[in-house]
Amino acid sequence: MKIGFLIIGSEVLDGKITDANTKLLADFLKTHHLEINEAFVARDRAKAISEALQTLWAQNDIVITSGGLGPTKDDITKETLAAFLDRALIYSKHSHHVAEENYKRFERPFPGKDHGYCYLPEGFFPLSNRTGLAPGFYTDNGKKLLFSAPGVPREFKSMLEEHFIGLIAERMDKTYIRDNVIIRTKGIPEEKIFAEIVPGLWEQLEEFGEVSSLPIIMGVDIGVKLKARNLDEMSSKVAAIHHIIDTSALRPNVWHYGPESLEEKIVVLANQKKIKFGFAESATGGLCSHRITSISGSSQCFMGSVICYDEKVKEHILGVSAKTLKECTAVSLVCANEMATGLRDKFSVDIAISITGFAGPGGGNDKYPVGSVCIGRAVKNTPAQAHDFHFKGDRELLKQRFAQAALHALLEEVEQFS
Amino acid sequence: MKIGFLIIGSEVLDGKITDANTKLLADFLKTHHLEINEAFVARDRAKAISEALQTLWAQNDIVITSGGLGPTKDDITKETLAAFLDRALIYSKHSHHVAEENYKRFERPFPGKDHGYCYLPEGFFPLSNRTGLAPGFYTDNGKKLLFSAPGVPREFKSMLEEHFIGLIAERMDKTYIRDNVIIRTKGIPEEKIFAEIVPGLWEQLEEFGEVSSLPIIMGVDIGVKLKARNLDEMSSKVAAIHHIIDTSALRPNVWHYGPESLEEKIVVLANQKKIKFGFAESATGGLCSHRITSISGSSQCFMGSVICYDEKVKEHILGVSAKTLKECTAVSLVCANEMATGLRDKFSVDIAISITGFAGPGGGNDKYPVGSVCIGRAVKNTPAQAHDFHFKGDRELLKQRFAQAALHALLEEVEQFS
Repeated sequence: MKIGFLIIGSEVLDGKITDANTKLLADFLKTHHLEINEAFVARDRAKAISEALQTLWAQNDIVITSGGLGPTKDDITKETLAAFLDRALIYSKHSHHVAEENYKRFERPFPGKDHGYCYLPEGFFPLSNRTGLAPGFYTDNGKKLLFSAPGVPREFKSMLEEHFIGLIAERMDKTYIRDNVIIRTKGIPEEKIFAEIVPGLWEQLEEFGEVSSLPIIMGVDIGVKLKARNLDEMSSKVAAIHHIIDTSALRPNVWHYGPESLEEKIVVLANQKKIKFGFAESATGGLCSHRITSISGSSQCFMGSVICYDEKVKEHILGVSAKTLKECTAVSLVCANEMATGLRDKFSVDIAISITGFAGPGGGNDKYPVGSVCIGRAVKNTPAQAHDFHFKGDRELLKQRFAQAALHALLEEVEQFS
Repeated sequence: MKIGFLIIGSEVLDGKITDANTKLLADFLKTHHLEINEAFVARDRAKAISEALQTLWAQNDIVITSGGLGPTKDDITKETLAAFLDRALIYSKHSHHVAEENYKRFERPFPGKDHGYCYLPEGFFPLSNRTGLAPGFYTDNGKKLLFSAPGVPREFKSMLEEHFIGLIAERMDKTYIRDNVIIRTKGIPEEKIFAEIVPGLWEQLEEFGEVSSLPIIMGVDIGVKLKARNLDEMSSKVAAIHHIIDTSALRPNVWHYGPESLEEKIVVLANQKKIKFGFAESATGGLCSHRITSISGSSQCFMGSVICYDEKVKEHILGVSAKTLKECTAVSLVCANEMATGLRDKFSVDIAISITGFAGPGGGNDKYPVGSVCIGRAVKNTPAQAHDFHFKGDRELLKQRFAQAALHALLEEVEQFS
């Protein structure tokens, strides 16, 4: 069952927003062992939408569209779909009702039966929208299914969850179960993994299914797509892959099996071990704390942080000594140690991680040019330790790399903590 | 000149990453008054890439591809392009040289002339890569130009900057200059703006160029694409649009003309006025600080923050009274006021903004269910004030809305500060 995705919105092609719906759709489909075959981004123009539809319609069994269902004049998805499928746009009592209910949920008066939301192409059915005003819709001729939802990610997502799987239940392939093995590594470039560390690994994994390799910040994610006739067969395939990796030279660089993020892994493990932690963030400016607090359950283990962008905050709030700031400067192993120790003691946490560095574009010196960062670790009852790292990139990328290095340091400490 | 963009990478369609290159390309083209006509995302499979190429090749003058140039077995862009254009893949001395230079820059030994980086389709030219190992390449038959760069956003971006405009200089239309007017509003839903607040505004703006409307967090961005024969004509068009908005009922809700983000506007204005500020962040967990510190120049105005996720941090670091935490609880106007005041006094800033609320999924009470937030403002020599807001969404969206509300509060205070 091939699924094509049409993203309708000039705002994506104009760089005003980054499309979030492809990821939402992919993640949603994955839980049902389905995938996107291909995606197309088209401008809010009838010709562009029709041309994209033609390509996707020819090559897929299901076409999902997002965007262009709103109330403004550049929202022309419905009209264009009607023309493409040669259907008239007609008043639909059913769509009128769905739209009215959407408005009621937001305590807004519905403008009445002349409103565009009451019109649908012939043979289309409206879909209620829990999280917005515009109804979605679908049409199914037995061969092809077309499913349209608004482009606002929240609305797109809730409409998928509420309506989509029900519509395709009968088409789903029940012969196989599917799963993905993800091997998350750090510290070795993609090319070295397959050419030097474990030559032949790609071919070995390929015997189990389609292999992929994705460089991410400070590491590489290796993926294998599996297919099996039952759970036993699937478990033994997964176990075999784990065994290959566990007995390979790559093992020391694997920090996780599975799709979980670094921050998810930290929060789950810290909560299990009842560890409390916090950050003294300078160069990352709040990014470490933001990543941790995006995880549900982080309020149990994450006490808080000091974002010490200015030296006075390092000195007066964290207790870094004036001497250190003057003689060693703020970007130094000594300062990182004092920041981590200060945070640990003032916040009474088990583990404190500190980050001080140069994210640029200004700053830096001979020893520590832009891209350098010192990361300190202060664990309860233990003297603090700090390490320095050197990365490349612009300000935003450097912040991300510094934060990734700091979270890897935190994960190591959480794993070792007893 | 129509530009089609082909994103090659199963990782995007599998939701492992969100494509960042469309935005990078759009932003880059915008500075040269060009735009992406359409974009296609294809899996790392020869058939999928060829089919997408066929569509884009037929409908565009220039096709740009990103991804699939790396060293692993799923990197098949070059082979597929060669087959699509019916060219043989041959050893290229030039490409060998470019690849060797790329490796030198990273102080890595180049594997030698059998390496895939030394091979190119006939009639293709290699392009050096300042930020990575894989060379890019292009081919131009006078009618159509094909330009291929790696998918890693840093490499894709630097290759565009270094090579792309030079390659298309002769094709560029010099008859018109182009510009975009962006009107950034807050506080009114999209539908109300055009139906109730300023009916007829869309049609009025349409006389100047293509109009778009984009709902963003807590607001709507209205865009108008302008075309003019010279700078004078452009200036008078821009002035006419500003006049229409300035004399309309929409004016009080316009917070900015232009593409700048809320955090950029805050940093620029605070630096001009030499204002120092900081945050006491609970529910936003570092997001406000992260957004501000992503802006170059923020180190002049942003002193730092306390992320006070736990009540003990609110009490012991910010000085919120135990009585307030017990009687009013942590999510209350009183607590928000004390957090902001504490931050202002301890960090010696001119303006402190505090955020305390329920981002869910747990927490909340009758008065303040999940989605509620109290935002406090403590300005030098003035008693603190706090306001509450109620939003909808999941944890991640609520964090974003809370942060947006907090930054709008900060912008207001920075604007009023004297």
